[in-house]
Amino acid sequence: MNTTGHLLRLTTFGESHGPALGAVIDGCPPGLLLDEALIQVDLDRRRPGQGAHTTPRREGDRVEILSGVFEGETTGAPIGLLIRNHDADPGAYAPLKGVYRPGHADFSYHARFGRRDWRGGGRASARETACRVAGGAIARAILAREGVEVLAWVEALARVTATVDPLTVTRAQIEADPLRCPDPEARIAMAAALDEARAARDTVGGIVGCVARGVPPGWGAPIFDRLEADLAKACLSIPACKGFELGDGFAGSQGRGSTHNDPFKMTPQGLRVAGLKGGGIDGGISNGAPILFRCAFKPVSSHGQAQKTYDLSGAPVEITVEGRHDPTVLPRAAPVVEAAALLTLADHLLRTRALGRAGP
Amino acid sequence: MNTTGHLLRLTTFGESHGPALGAVIDGCPPGLLLDEALIQVDLDRRRPGQGAHTTPRREGDRVEILSGVFEGETTGAPIGLLIRNHDADPGAYAPLKGVYRPGHADFSYHARFGRRDWRGGGRASARETACRVAGGAIARAILAREGVEVLAWVEALARVTATVDPLTVTRAQIEADPLRCPDPEARIAMAAALDEARAARDTVGGIVGCVARGVPPGWGAPIFDRLEADLAKACLSIPACKGFELGDGFAGSQGRGSTHNDPFKMTPQGLRVAGLKGGGIDGGISNGAPILFRCAFKPVSSHGQAQKTYDLSGAPVEITVEGRHDPTVLPRAAPVVEAAALLTLADHLLRTRALGRAGP
Amino acid sequence: MNTTGHLLRLTTFGESHGPALGAVIDGCPPGLLLDEALIQVDLDRRRPGQGAHTTPRREGDRVEILSGVFEGETTGAPIGLLIRNHDADPGAYAPLKGVYRPGHADFSYHARFGRRDWRGGGRASARETACRVAGGAIARAILAREGVEVLAWVEALARVTATVDPLTVTRAQIEADPLRCPDPEARIAMAAALDEARAARDTVGGIVGCVARGVPPGWGAPIFDRLEADLAKACLSIPACKGFELGDGFAGSQGRGSTHNDPFKMTPQGLRVAGLKGGGIDGGISNGAPILFRCAFKPVSSHGQAQKTYDLSGAPVEITVEGRHDPTVLPRAAPVVEAAALLTLADHLLRTRALGRAGP
Amino acid sequence: MNTTGHLLRLTTFGESHGPALGAVIDGCPPGLLLDEALIQVDLDRRRPGQGAHTTPRREGDRVEILSGVFEGETTGAPIGLLIRNHDADPGAYAPLKGVYRPGHADFSYHARFGRRDWRGGGRASARETACRVAGGAIARAILAREGVEVLAWVEALARVTATVDPLTVTRAQIEADPLRCPDPEARIAMAAALDEARAARDTVGGIVGCVARGVPPGWGAPIFDRLEADLAKACLSIPACKGFELGDGFAGSQGRGSTHNDPFKMTPQGLRVAGLKGGGIDGGISNGAPILFRCAFKPVSSHGQAQKTYDLSGAPVEITVEGRHDPTVLPRAAPVVEAAALLTLADHLLRTRALGRAGP
Repeated sequence: MNTTGHLLRLTTFGESHGPALGAVIDGCPPGLLLDEALIQVDLDRRRPGQGAHTTPRREGDRVEILSGVFEGETTGAPIGLLIRNHDADPGAYAPLKGVYRPGHADFSYHARFGRRDWRGGGRASARETACRVAGGAIARAILAREGVEVLAWVEALARVTATVDPLTVTRAQIEADPLRCPDPEARIAMAAALDEARAARDTVGGIVGCVARGVPPGWGAPIFDRLEADLAKACLSIPACKGFELGDGFAGSQGRGSTHNDPFKMTPQGLRVAGLKGGGIDGGISNGAPILFRCAFKPVSSHGQAQKTYDLSGAPVEITVEGRHDPTVLPRAAPVVEAAALLTLADHLLRTRALGRAGP
Repeated sequence: MNTTGHLLRLTTFGESHGPALGAVIDGCPPGLLLDEALIQVDLDRRRPGQGAHTTPRREGDRVEILSGVFEGETTGAPIGLLIRNHDADPGAYAPLKGVYRPGHADFSYHARFGRRDWRGGGRASARETACRVAGGAIARAILAREGVEVLAWVEALARVTATVDPLTVTRAQIEADPLRCPDPEARIAMAAALDEARAARDTVGGIVGCVARGVPPGWGAPIFDRLEADLAKACLSIPACKGFELGDGFAGSQGRGSTHNDPFKMTPQGLRVAGLKGGGIDGGISNGAPILFRCAFKPVSSHGQAQKTYDLSGAPVEITVEGRHDPTVLPRAAPVVEAAALLTLADHLLRTRALGRAGP
Repeated sequence: MNTTGHLLRLTTFGESHGPALGAVIDGCPPGLLLDEALIQVDLDRRRPGQGAHTTPRREGDRVEILSGVFEGETTGAPIGLLIRNHDADPGAYAPLKGVYRPGHADFSYHARFGRRDWRGGGRASARETACRVAGGAIARAILAREGVEVLAWVEALARVTATVDPLTVTRAQIEADPLRCPDPEARIAMAAALDEARAARDTVGGIVGCVARGVPPGWGAPIFDRLEADLAKACLSIPACKGFELGDGFAGSQGRGSTHNDPFKMTPQGLRVAGLKGGGIDGGISNGAPILFRCAFKPVSSHGQAQKTYDLSGAPVEITVEGRHDPTVLPRAAPVVEAAALLTLADHLLRTRALGRAGP
Repeated sequence: MNTTGHLLRLTTFGESHGPALGAVIDGCPPGLLLDEALIQVDLDRRRPGQGAHTTPRREGDRVEILSGVFEGETTGAPIGLLIRNHDADPGAYAPLKGVYRPGHADFSYHARFGRRDWRGGGRASARETACRVAGGAIARAILAREGVEVLAWVEALARVTATVDPLTVTRAQIEADPLRCPDPEARIAMAAALDEARAARDTVGGIVGCVARGVPPGWGAPIFDRLEADLAKACLSIPACKGFELGDGFAGSQGRGSTHNDPFKMTPQGLRVAGLKGGGIDGGISNGAPILFRCAFKPVSSHGQAQKTYDLSGAPVEITVEGRHDPTVLPRAAPVVEAAALLTLADHLLRTRALGRAGP
């Protein structure tokens, strides 16, 4: 399904090289100040062509609000968003029309739907995530009223890992460089790794870190729709994302219980969990600590070297994927991860409100 | 919500120390051979008291089928399952009635619901997963008709990592030892690590590996309900699970595109992706390779050492958690991870069938 | 699907002549006083064997709460309910094992599921509605805290129509007679019509009226999940229900706009719509007037006269349906209609609360 | 929520006097021939300005397909549709900006959302149903492949009732006149009633009849999502619809069981139910008889006579609603009812297919 969320719902449509992308945000509370500029800020961070490291595709990605806003405020009606594709160039993909690109969804989509939209991945293109970022911008406005801030950054690129303090990292530090790595030293090494990969006509992956600060205890749900489960789902639904960990995740699985539990602390707002090991969620419900998680992204599948594959008739062929591709998706993945977190948290805020949270 | 799945749906209810647990499996196709023994096999693998390493709680965990089966076959009606709690001993938790156990959901649940079921975690207890395992057993029967087999094992415990070949690992290898690690050498080291932790009144975590073999290309869904996204959600909704990775996940994020793409191979059944790096899913849809993923579990939060915490009035206290607890959940987590995978795959099978999969 | 509701969700399972019926109520706010006696009151009103007019089946219909309640109050966890079938007598249906009863779901279920549970309708039996009534009792407790009261009564039976004032009708008036018609004159005529039908080995239908008083303006949803749409769905999902009308419904469609609009009135609580023509809902959202609707029920399909039908092999046969059947379902349908309204309204209350209703 | 359907899902957005309306149809099977002309045919039947009887608003209602179609066929991706508002004239509503129009959703929406989009009803305008008709056109194409035909007509207008045979009525008979009443005699009387109402500056209501022919036995679902329940919900979610009845509905509730059950008949395709009393559905599942239902529509709330109401400050005022309004919605409601039926049936077709219908 192309819809996500239970009370705050995002539906997206559109192909990479079709006429337009679009999104519908349903369930947005009324009375939120909203205009296109607010959404555009986030969209611009995901936009291609931001620097030397990203695809040269030149999409303005201008969003138009079609509904749900009246006199500058949301009305409670669904918010329709439209992003026209202006720089679509399906012709560039014509040479690959009859083959399955390795690592892409060409073959699996064909197996699922029995047909093939060969124009740059069609619906499977990461261009669809522009709609999630647009929806996330609205979720951000909802959460801002609750004092919640969500930030994502590039934590690792290729084999370079940054040092980032999730308690203090700022938007300005993240946006200080197109790589979106707030660690100045690491990003020098990252840039070097990127240059090296590009020179080798190759691509790299990495890890995005994300923190949500200001979430009070009591947001979330037990059992199946746990907050961390919905966060993981939202992240794993991002193209190229192959892993998710909450708090100290995989590394923490090697530790011992006696040192793993985050302690409590008393604050002016009441009791809170302090510490980042647990990632701010216990049993599916926020505990007052910052919500912290990481997402692993595989290296970009479309690289510049020759690859063996098969054509639609089942004959083996060798191809070299040309076209406009990022050597890495990481800097542009960060805002998409943010959007995933924003949409998930805002949905759970509304769900929590429905039940009438009581607090201890 | 206590329901998961879109077409094959599992609803669970029940607390650890209440009268009973229960599950409703809705959407099961008619004509499936089903009796209590078939479910009991899986339940017994999750059951406490299986060996030296697990909690001494003695629950028979006998399941009763209340509906949905007639003359030995499913009818298409919802299948109601009941598991009575016989060995419930809420009194053992009375000393902790007024305090929040660190690392548990005591505090977050209280914040969410404004009250506290102190009887062994209440709804937050991992005992609820018995219902998922029961539902998973039914999903297993659905998938068996399609030639799909799902196996999970203990891949790491504490700092010991096993070597397991997901292409060939068998149920017999996994069940050869209560630790559910199919690598005989590793499990010796694991048992030693476990003994060491127990002697230190401590607990450990680890990693569960899981493979689904036989899934044809074309199962799954694009965008939000990607197969890997639903798998991640199902896994992260398991108590103590803090991480999920598909294929080579986090490690793969350090590699390069030129060596990361799994190749295609032609088989008697048609084209398939071969290789385990991608984890058998592209763009949310199975590609014919085995579906492979790993889940990280934190060390058990209830250990035998003194811990600082707060009571319900906000006063700091020191506690030692007594009671019946596993030094590790890993061997019993494996069947729960299997259930998560089984339920997710069977749901996507039905969803795929609804659209009428065509195949290339 | 055997689940209804978006935030307050009811899942039911169980067959008429299987081991048990059950229900899971999910999303119930914590802190509600709840015990089995509260549910039993409503169940007893739906129970068979209440008077001369209803089936002689003797089911105690004792409900057991399995979860979700602790120390006398709901916890926010799902509430599991169990009703054992004690007086099940599938043998009585053996003669009809191989034939399709006209007017029943025997044939359509067989077409859908490819098999036949011939034991008294199996899942299609109206006995399943006991679970809805149990769920409705919990919804009633939720709504009572908001000052909302829901009452249903027999408004017409056979060709006899009662005169009932929905503004003033009371529970006592409805329960004054097993027929549940609060109009004393009409119920004499109804009883006579029923006697006449029974003497002719025949059955009759009728109309249930229902009012919800105390619903403030602003509950509901626009477009697809309109309050009246969800009410209609809940009612049409009751066995034998064939029609639904809001306010003056079908009769009103013959009127003119100049006299049809309900007027506004100013009250101490603020502006309200007054009048019953519109049924208390405009555009899917309550307007402050009592919510009033009616449901048509067809005559009971199982009557005592010979009928032509076909057996499973496709051969024409003549049958006479014996067994324990009501000559009319109307008196027992009233509590089921109440449950449908209660569950729908409580779900919309929670949905409205999630968005944070503002009011003019 | 602004989304309907479980597997075939329609999401709509847009206000009557905003920039555009839009729809997303998700879950459409791949390989369906689809272009804008196919959708436009149905849209044109709902379009304003079709004759003397309808609003003079001149909207071309041109639909643009934004996604989900490639090389003339659906791809399985969501289909985004856009209808720009060209003739929006919110200024016409400025005089009513500060008052609640009786019979409209002005007040209830304000109570729900705390604000007021006074531009011609905003989201509550029946103009939104254009999106449903567009979605219904796609559902029609899905159903056509299964041999299912859905037709709706004006069965009653004011106090005039037509005689229509649902077994034989044709599209040509319905479209022979802008009133969409296939009974030539009745439509003369209807036209007269309409002239009379218009002369009195008044409005009228009526009844739409609808039949689905060719639905095989076995489509639908038991319990809550019964086919008739989903049809009722879809119809009651249409603006001004106040009643729904399946088969002989309310009239049938006065009959007796011995004459009410529709008989079976053996056909070359197998056993089928014959007869229109039951409306083609038993227990939520189609039985092979034509599916027949009726919807009651109240008289249009905006008439040309003075009305008493209140302004937003709570002061009583008298208003006369000017503007572009239909004296009746019935001829334009027929295609909307068709769309409701088409979307519901196509969704249930996919749901039935998911389970793998077996048939007796």
